[in-house]
Amino acid sequence: MTIDSSPQLDIGVLPLVFENNRVMLVDQRQLPYKLEMFDATSLDDMCFAITDMVVRGAPSIGVAAAFGLAMEAQRLSEHSGHPSQLEADGKAQFLKDLNSARVRLQATRPTAVNLRWATDKLFLEVERFGKTNINADLRAMAERATDCAKHMLEEHIEINRTLSDFGAELVPQNAAIMTHCNAGSLAACGWGTALGVIRSAALRGLNPTVYVDETRPRNQGSKLTVWELHQDKIPATLVCDSMSGHLMCDGKVQMVVTGADRIAANGDSANKIGTYNLAVVANYHNIPFYIAAPISTIDPHIQTGKSIPIEERHGSEITNFGGVQTSMDGVNVYNPAFDVTPAKLIAGIITECGVLRPPYEESIAAALHQKEG
Amino acid sequence: MTIDSSPQLDIGVLPLVFENNRVMLVDQRQLPYKLEMFDATSLDDMCFAITDMVVRGAPSIGVAAAFGLAMEAQRLSEHSGHPSQLEADGKAQFLKDLNSARVRLQATRPTAVNLRWATDKLFLEVERFGKTNINADLRAMAERATDCAKHMLEEHIEINRTLSDFGAELVPQNAAIMTHCNAGSLAACGWGTALGVIRSAALRGLNPTVYVDETRPRNQGSKLTVWELHQDKIPATLVCDSMSGHLMCDGKVQMVVTGADRIAANGDSANKIGTYNLAVVANYHNIPFYIAAPISTIDPHIQTGKSIPIEERHGSEITNFGGVQTSMDGVNVYNPAFDVTPAKLIAGIITECGVLRPPYEESIAAALHQKEG
Repeated sequence: MTIDSSPQLDIGVLPLVFENNRVMLVDQRQLPYKLEMFDATSLDDMCFAITDMVVRGAPSIGVAAAFGLAMEAQRLSEHSGHPSQLEADGKAQFLKDLNSARVRLQATRPTAVNLRWATDKLFLEVERFGKTNINADLRAMAERATDCAKHMLEEHIEINRTLSDFGAELVPQNAAIMTHCNAGSLAACGWGTALGVIRSAALRGLNPTVYVDETRPRNQGSKLTVWELHQDKIPATLVCDSMSGHLMCDGKVQMVVTGADRIAANGDSANKIGTYNLAVVANYHNIPFYIAAPISTIDPHIQTGKSIPIEERHGSEITNFGGVQTSMDGVNVYNPAFDVTPAKLIAGIITECGVLRPPYEESIAAALHQKEG
Repeated sequence: MTIDSSPQLDIGVLPLVFENNRVMLVDQRQLPYKLEMFDATSLDDMCFAITDMVVRGAPSIGVAAAFGLAMEAQRLSEHSGHPSQLEADGKAQFLKDLNSARVRLQATRPTAVNLRWATDKLFLEVERFGKTNINADLRAMAERATDCAKHMLEEHIEINRTLSDFGAELVPQNAAIMTHCNAGSLAACGWGTALGVIRSAALRGLNPTVYVDETRPRNQGSKLTVWELHQDKIPATLVCDSMSGHLMCDGKVQMVVTGADRIAANGDSANKIGTYNLAVVANYHNIPFYIAAPISTIDPHIQTGKSIPIEERHGSEITNFGGVQTSMDGVNVYNPAFDVTPAKLIAGIITECGVLRPPYEESIAAALHQKEG
């Protein structure tokens, strides 16, 4: 599979390109100033890339981690001696080492469930393949891992297209849509989730305009979302996160849509810090607040949002902007990276299985059933 | 009157010092990096200082503008020929020129009413003095203007002390208080309004801690409020404006208090952009949201918040932080400097006449009556 990394108006800029057996990530820390690729082929580099947010956005993190695991499978297969010497013990050791890599990747960021989902899925597929194909050597298992990661990437773009079509049906003509953080092509392996809905609405001639929260502290909105919308020629206006109420009170917003990093079985949704405030303010103004996310974002093991682990990141993300200090030395800072929006504030969860509606316990269970079936 | 400009733990850092017949402002654009004074003695410099936010905060702007007008009265009195030549015509021209200066000062920023209130009050006092003292020459009138401005400054500190004492009665023991922007000594001519309440609570041994919104786009929270609280050794934690809901949901905030730039007759209150979001989110969590402001912030000519003019500032405040670009070139930006919190979201308005409670039409009218009486 070769995908051109240059801007593609039809699916947006792909955050991950697998070419010549190397995993190349768009370095999202550099945008919109520079479009640079980061080589995350080694496990160390992939772990760093996820932790330092070279790659971010729950679906992109998940697929990137899957590629990271696949590349580690290749490395392990190449360092386990001659294929002909392989025996059951060799396979067991390979799977044990691969499992260690999985554990390490999953520890890079705690909130997004896609990271766990994608690496679990890939690992189990390799394990299953090894068991059901007695004669498969480590190289074949590693190839299987790579195929699995490539398939996930392709599948995500399809999923995003599908959920975006469902979401576009919710968008009124000429609507001003507000979004938070970046749930675009960069975040979601191509096309996007929340931005995918907006893209699909634009393709249908619905003429959407977008208010983009700058999304403190890392400014994914001002840096990434504004840039993606510009690529697509969709009119966008940048605002501070604190301006949503003022805009809504003035009747300037008709709809809110964001992505999600993990959705509990009851519909409570963790997403970038500030999403909860936006949902509360939207509800106060009777403006529908939607989540757009693939089914893989749902964590059926988590009953409510209270159990979703919230990553706390370093305070310097708030006190430093591009090398410029925003506050005095030694200030005490609290920097949670996510918050949880309770299901009761969510008008609908836009997925590839359709728009899920309350009561979410039922609609989510049905969607998971449909997806497995 | 000579006031030391060095940090004073009892009333905070004074934003304005009048010494040797010069109006010296703390350059609030430089804090917390540098404590520098800005000479705003000339009308041009004072207009620039207000527009460019060398001095900011509704009460501080008002008193600074009053000093600006008094200094212009001095200048006019010195450039109107020999005192003995003065006649009624000379006084009329002096008042006409002084009125032009008033109009110019009032045009520097549209939202805060204190600017209008203070310059109107000073102008009317000079006019009245000129009329009732037939023999008073322009120098005497200019002296009267200066005395009036000095009195306003002293009076504000007293007012802030009084309202802060009323406010401190609302603060529970060991409460975590959230605030937005800077309504401290710097904003309010000394001691502070919202921060004054917190200072008074600390003086009473109530042991408050403070969550400080960084307050995008100009970061008055991270730059000024954090610094003021540090001077006072009151524990403060810096957060992004979008984190309030997450904190409140976790039970980490017991009370919210902010300042105000203009309060309508019905209690609707304009304050720094983001205050409205904070009030909506506080109400959603049943956490009391208070405004702390002197009675001079009330504009009885404005019936509801809908009529309060909202200043829109340049988009570069959002797209540029200390010389670092936060977004791509040419992005469309919307940057309202204030928003309006409707009275129904405000648990009480803390003033020097006590804590006003709903229905605000009545309590505000009574307070205005008390103040005039």
